[in-house]
Amino acid sequence: MPPEAPKPCGMRKGMDQMTTKWVYKFGGGDADGGTGDKNLLGGKGANLAEMAGIGLPVPPGFTITTEMCTRFYELGEDFPDDLDAQVQAGMQHIEKITGRRFGDTAAPLLVSVRSGARASMPGMMDTVLNLGLNDDTVAGLAAESGDERFAWDSYRRFIQMYSDVVLGLDHYLFEDAMEIAKEDKGVYLDTELEADDLKALVAVYKEKVEEELGRPFPQDPKDQLWGGIRAVFSSWNTERAKVYRRLNNIPHDWGTAVNVQAMVFGNMGDTSATGVAFTRDPSTGENRYYGEFLINAQGEDVVAGIRTPQYLTKAGKDAAGADKPAMEEAMPEVYAQLADTFALLEKHYRDMQDIEFTVQEGTLWLLQTRNGKRTAPAALKIAVDMAAEGLITEEEAVCRVDPQALDQLLHPTLDPDAKRDVIATGLPASPGAASGIIAFTADEAERRASLGEDVLLVRVETSPEDIHGMHAAKGILTARGGMTSHAAVVARGMGRPCVSGAGSLSIDRQTKEMTVGGRTFKEGDRLTIDGGTGEVMAGEVATVQPVLAGDFGTLMDWADKKRRMRVRTNAETPAECHTAREFGAEGIGLCRTEHMFFEADRITAVREMILSEDESDRRKALAKLLPSQRSDFEEIFRVMAGLPVTVRLLDPPLHEFMPQSDADFDEVARASGFSVERLKRRASELHEFNPMLGHRGCRLGITYPEIYEMQARAIFEAALTVAEENDGDGDTVLPEIMVPLVMTAGELSTIRALVERTADAVFQERGRRIAYLVGTMIELPRAALKAHEIAAHAEFFSFGTNDLTQTTLGISRDDAGRFLGDYVDKGLLARDPFVSIDEGGVGELVALAAERGRSTAPEIKLGICGEHGGDPDSVAFCEKTGLAYVSCSPYRVPIARLAAAQAALRSSD
Amino acid sequence: MPPEAPKPCGMRKGMDQMTTKWVYKFGGGDADGGTGDKNLLGGKGANLAEMAGIGLPVPPGFTITTEMCTRFYELGEDFPDDLDAQVQAGMQHIEKITGRRFGDTAAPLLVSVRSGARASMPGMMDTVLNLGLNDDTVAGLAAESGDERFAWDSYRRFIQMYSDVVLGLDHYLFEDAMEIAKEDKGVYLDTELEADDLKALVAVYKEKVEEELGRPFPQDPKDQLWGGIRAVFSSWNTERAKVYRRLNNIPHDWGTAVNVQAMVFGNMGDTSATGVAFTRDPSTGENRYYGEFLINAQGEDVVAGIRTPQYLTKAGKDAAGADKPAMEEAMPEVYAQLADTFALLEKHYRDMQDIEFTVQEGTLWLLQTRNGKRTAPAALKIAVDMAAEGLITEEEAVCRVDPQALDQLLHPTLDPDAKRDVIATGLPASPGAASGIIAFTADEAERRASLGEDVLLVRVETSPEDIHGMHAAKGILTARGGMTSHAAVVARGMGRPCVSGAGSLSIDRQTKEMTVGGRTFKEGDRLTIDGGTGEVMAGEVATVQPVLAGDFGTLMDWADKKRRMRVRTNAETPAECHTAREFGAEGIGLCRTEHMFFEADRITAVREMILSEDESDRRKALAKLLPSQRSDFEEIFRVMAGLPVTVRLLDPPLHEFMPQSDADFDEVARASGFSVERLKRRASELHEFNPMLGHRGCRLGITYPEIYEMQARAIFEAALTVAEENDGDGDTVLPEIMVPLVMTAGELSTIRALVERTADAVFQERGRRIAYLVGTMIELPRAALKAHEIAAHAEFFSFGTNDLTQTTLGISRDDAGRFLGDYVDKGLLARDPFVSIDEGGVGELVALAAERGRSTAPEIKLGICGEHGGDPDSVAFCEKTGLAYVSCSPYRVPIARLAAAQAALRSSD
Repeated sequence: MPPEAPKPCGMRKGMDQMTTKWVYKFGGGDADGGTGDKNLLGGKGANLAEMAGIGLPVPPGFTITTEMCTRFYELGEDFPDDLDAQVQAGMQHIEKITGRRFGDTAAPLLVSVRSGARASMPGMMDTVLNLGLNDDTVAGLAAESGDERFAWDSYRRFIQMYSDVVLGLDHYLFEDAMEIAKEDKGVYLDTELEADDLKALVAVYKEKVEEELGRPFPQDPKDQLWGGIRAVFSSWNTERAKVYRRLNNIPHDWGTAVNVQAMVFGNMGDTSATGVAFTRDPSTGENRYYGEFLINAQGEDVVAGIRTPQYLTKAGKDAAGADKPAMEEAMPEVYAQLADTFALLEKHYRDMQDIEFTVQEGTLWLLQTRNGKRTAPAALKIAVDMAAEGLITEEEAVCRVDPQALDQLLHPTLDPDAKRDVIATGLPASPGAASGIIAFTADEAERRASLGEDVLLVRVETSPEDIHGMHAAKGILTARGGMTSHAAVVARGMGRPCVSGAGSLSIDRQTKEMTVGGRTFKEGDRLTIDGGTGEVMAGEVATVQPVLAGDFGTLMDWADKKRRMRVRTNAETPAECHTAREFGAEGIGLCRTEHMFFEADRITAVREMILSEDESDRRKALAKLLPSQRSDFEEIFRVMAGLPVTVRLLDPPLHEFMPQSDADFDEVARASGFSVERLKRRASELHEFNPMLGHRGCRLGITYPEIYEMQARAIFEAALTVAEENDGDGDTVLPEIMVPLVMTAGELSTIRALVERTADAVFQERGRRIAYLVGTMIELPRAALKAHEIAAHAEFFSFGTNDLTQTTLGISRDDAGRFLGDYVDKGLLARDPFVSIDEGGVGELVALAAERGRSTAPEIKLGICGEHGGDPDSVAFCEKTGLAYVSCSPYRVPIARLAAAQAALRSSD
Repeated sequence: MPPEAPKPCGMRKGMDQMTTKWVYKFGGGDADGGTGDKNLLGGKGANLAEMAGIGLPVPPGFTITTEMCTRFYELGEDFPDDLDAQVQAGMQHIEKITGRRFGDTAAPLLVSVRSGARASMPGMMDTVLNLGLNDDTVAGLAAESGDERFAWDSYRRFIQMYSDVVLGLDHYLFEDAMEIAKEDKGVYLDTELEADDLKALVAVYKEKVEEELGRPFPQDPKDQLWGGIRAVFSSWNTERAKVYRRLNNIPHDWGTAVNVQAMVFGNMGDTSATGVAFTRDPSTGENRYYGEFLINAQGEDVVAGIRTPQYLTKAGKDAAGADKPAMEEAMPEVYAQLADTFALLEKHYRDMQDIEFTVQEGTLWLLQTRNGKRTAPAALKIAVDMAAEGLITEEEAVCRVDPQALDQLLHPTLDPDAKRDVIATGLPASPGAASGIIAFTADEAERRASLGEDVLLVRVETSPEDIHGMHAAKGILTARGGMTSHAAVVARGMGRPCVSGAGSLSIDRQTKEMTVGGRTFKEGDRLTIDGGTGEVMAGEVATVQPVLAGDFGTLMDWADKKRRMRVRTNAETPAECHTAREFGAEGIGLCRTEHMFFEADRITAVREMILSEDESDRRKALAKLLPSQRSDFEEIFRVMAGLPVTVRLLDPPLHEFMPQSDADFDEVARASGFSVERLKRRASELHEFNPMLGHRGCRLGITYPEIYEMQARAIFEAALTVAEENDGDGDTVLPEIMVPLVMTAGELSTIRALVERTADAVFQERGRRIAYLVGTMIELPRAALKAHEIAAHAEFFSFGTNDLTQTTLGISRDDAGRFLGDYVDKGLLARDPFVSIDEGGVGELVALAAERGRSTAPEIKLGICGEHGGDPDSVAFCEKTGLAYVSCSPYRVPIARLAAAQAALRSSD
């Protein structure tokens, strides 16, 4: 046990009498665990063990399990008694392999202490390097390495990092001291400081620590070790880590592992280096090594984006027009060894790898490998290429691409022909184009975005504290940092376009101005970035639709072969229908008819209808609406020829069509001829306390059957017209009439009878019949419970999971903002139930309704048309429940197709 | 088949090839059916068969079943082929027993055609008497009876009634002709017209029919018969019948039977008579015959209230101070036979009977018997008396009283000491006192009542068309009609006080004035009636609380012995708690705490709390609320000493506490010191689109734990104070803390931990502990589905069926007015789901939550605290579901006690 952790409550600790294996060792050609132990050892620990197991050069170390993290929090941030001995054994394992001893003044062992959760959380948690250095061992390190400067530089780095991470001191304290030291000496680079300078700097650092804390910097390596372990476990619950988990749907109870590993040094002179590499290009997916390294540096120097790194390959260097030699040129032997390792790891893991390495005096060490994060285009290309290379199967390729990530590919890119006022160029850090107004802080970005504005976050460089602003922004622009800087990595993960390292930008946070090439831009000015080229442009640049061919087409073809469920779209304009068909929609699952009522030429007739005193006046007003409603449907049926079109009859309460403000009332009074008084009286009669639970859906059709009658007539007349047009080409018109908000079987049978009467009348008038279906939305708990009765009158059910979520959970979507985030943060809800279906509550009702509906009508067609239809997790639920189709907004159709394929493949496992 | 019914669609009719028994015969000492066949034969038909079967004098006849009614509507208001032969056989049965023939000119058989549903619907459906008379048979009737006047009077009555009921002609046509005939002759009473006058009148009647219809009055008795049968079946679906069924919860699909029966005549001179009788007083329940009769009259004359009838018994006559002899005096022999029959029928049916009889030339005939409708006090007295007499058991007595009807007994009566400005006295037709403003039409009564005014419906006499106005009114006052007039019967059924036949009132519908004793009252003036004394008073008279002893106490004692469920109350003021205890409440099931926040001295602190910028300001404002909240609880705990008190933590969204109008804002700004701008900004921040589904319930406790902490502290501090006071008398304080609107187990465990921490703190401060429970409301569908998880943290569930109904059905109670009535009328909902629990939907969730909750916590206490807790049908559902208690408003506690007893008795059957 660390001595600074008191044990006030022996009883509690005493409960851990049966020894649990908390510590897993690796290194020296062997390991206790491997890739399969990711849940227990975290991603980093499991992969270090795996690499050690297959004989790759991994510095020896051990992993403290994620279970320890859980236990740590159960004990009120404390450790059980039996951990101490296991950690000691782990240290002995490292000492044995390295031949060094922890705290030894002759051959001191230094270790790193790093976090490693099941899922990667880059930059979110803490790391301490060079642990084990003190006033005694630094001398040993100097003597042994023969490099006094190296030893003192390591020590000063260690003090700075340990003070920041473990002791909670501000890193500016040390940076300031460093700046002063450099100024005093009149040098510019850290590397220009000599051993004695650094030695003096260490003294200053230690003084500052004692000043701040009132006690000296810890000299006992064991104290240092326990402090580091504690800090890493504690960093699991920092605010920024919690936000990251929420944004990435990582459960709070997973916990992190802690990896303690022998240090290797990339900063032991010019035969030493440190770098990061991807086995393929994580931005485009091209099959070429992609990476950066720094000679004579530690790993954090690369990631921090402070020194501009060199390229790994000559091709990469040449393409970028960089000056400094590539690693392929500077260290050809080690590079060759590295390239062999890349091939081995890709084959072993059957996926693109993201690797951290260090070269210590010409010897290669691997510090980490993991499946590399990649952009959506890269994911697509890598999956398709690897299947073509025979490395993975088509099924695996389909499962390799995160459907959610396709979103990036489906949105417009900059029009290549549009005029561009390029003001700067940076690194193409995350693809895609984004326009928005400038925000210089994450808070400002979040605030402006919450007002509905498109925002670009513009920063010198980003840090984990900026995560909420990056999420809120449409794109990120930084003045410093490379392709693997924080901004670049996080932006790629979030699917936000990013241009990093645009060095010509001068950003002044104080005055909130950015100057470049003599031009000044203020907060609120508009910029456009192209994350594919690195260009930064003034103003907004026109965009074009993406071309969905090549790898995308190949993968979607594979996906379509594997999926069972159909994918439809929620669309109500011809333009949306076109887009959806291009994205592969196999019909319309939800065509809302109310939006058609809002158009300027119709709203007057709608209001006349609402103001009617009796049915006959209402019918007159509806007669005016019929032609436009009919022509809406004609257009839709034309675009969707040959595919089913589910039309939902009028759903919202009538007051939604009434004017809102006094000015609106005046205008409507002038336009309609109704007095303001009459309009206001009617609006007040129609006012509802809870419109969501009000006089809407089929309740309107029960009270005012003539409204639904007009809509049914418009549908059938339009269908017959388009059917006649289609007679030549054999495409059929397949209308499916959907009745909303049903709670009893009687409602549906009543409306169904009305629809059938209307159809018969139209068919008789036109002398031609067409096939059509009548069905209902299941969007109230009672409808789900009564599905067996309702199914007797329905040819299909479409689960309206938006409203079903609102009623089942008793949460108004419009009002949930004030507490829903809090609920997810506090773990009271696993996810936002409006984004991903609440399987335990809403999901049970859906499954029950499906079962009961089928008990009456075994052939009933079941689908979903809530927003959940485009959410991969919800699509997986639909597959499990055996639904026939999902329906989602046009841009999510490819996402749903891929998610449906993955769900089908996984369910057949 | 009737010749006027064409058969366009032979196929449809051909489906009835298997012969169904549509016709059941009775009379001549035997019958096909009996009381047990009420569903098939209707109440009247089943009882006629029963009486015939036990040898009572019933004119022979037959019943066409209620199944025929269903079939009739299935066939689009037409009859199946096989009915004709069965009706013919029925007519032959009557002919055989009476020795008369239908359409015979020498001894013509005349029949009545009457409706008869399962449940009595007095005055709601059609009847035709004297059917079979035509120009030929009228002569035979005259010759045979030796009474030409009687024959022609019967014929003219028949034409009038048949024209009204079957041919759809306006009865004023005939009444006008009758008035002219009387004026021409210079007489006042119908009975003063002689045979020739009536003969001439018949000719006029027939002319009028032919004028109106373009075809002569039907002369073929078979046409008449089928017309009558059709009219009765059709009358099942008149608007007034539908309204009655809705008000009385009679399903629309029950249908009516049709009874065809040989006519007997009470209008064959002074040895003939017709009357109605109750075997006990239906108003008070006293064990004495109660009835009225008219010499030389047909039955409709009594019910219509046109002639003032004579009393049955001498005692009755004397008590009323009437002039004309009682039947006991006028017809002593028949009276004696009638009295024997009363005794026989009461013993046979084991209940008070409502009997219609006719005396034809000294011979008694029974036309109907049924369990008599009665007032609530009468029901109580009859049940208790009959049990004392040994006629029924205590269990039966408990089941005999409609719990709903107790409502009449539980409300105030006129203060006997108050000054009464009596302006008139009529008959005490239905007990209870009512004050209200005058409405002279049913529509006006309904309109004013819908504005929230108390209304008295004041009419010369009422008719079935007035039913909606009677329902809307607090009481009914008529100038004409007896104790069995339409007004009296319907008012007693509805539990509305009624004074009928207040002959001194002169009512002018045109000028909307009522004059009496020289004083004039206009529409909108206020009157009071006392249905127990018949007094009509100007203005409003003070009332007193009812005394709940005597029969009421006896019956409630019996009920309490039989019931399994506990009955609690929903109450939050000490006064309400007092009332509820007096009515037998066994604890508080729902004490809402928000009402305490609205009081003038607190609302400012509440608003301060809402306007606080941070937790520390909120805590300051809450500290101001603590003392008053604590003293509220102290008072309640004192009143409820020894009984459990369930306190619900704050439930409504905070914006409910903000001012609403501009004037309110100004006032609050002055009082609170907050600027109007700040108040408005906060109100607008808090505004919700659907407050029912908003930031309320335990969501407040999650966001602002300090609010619930203050409330928990107030509860525990108050409980300890009252526990100390009670130490002498051994009564304990039993607080049960209820968490509202839970949807996940995590919410409850979070709030539970908060409550427990607070309890521990208070117990430590005060040095004393008390027992308490923590539980939750189940009022969201998700909570019901997750009951097994939630139960792990709850000692009790209380089903909040108001909100559960809102969410399960997706109906906002505040907004349902516009369509819910329509839904019940159209049969889309059997009942208003906020009055009687929707067993199929909400009920399933309750049952499922009970089962799942018990699967985790077998001993969990289950109750209900929605308004449904006081609705007898819902109480029966709770018994079936095995709940431990129901909780309802104080005045409904006795209703719930009785309903719970009945439910227990019925479930043990």
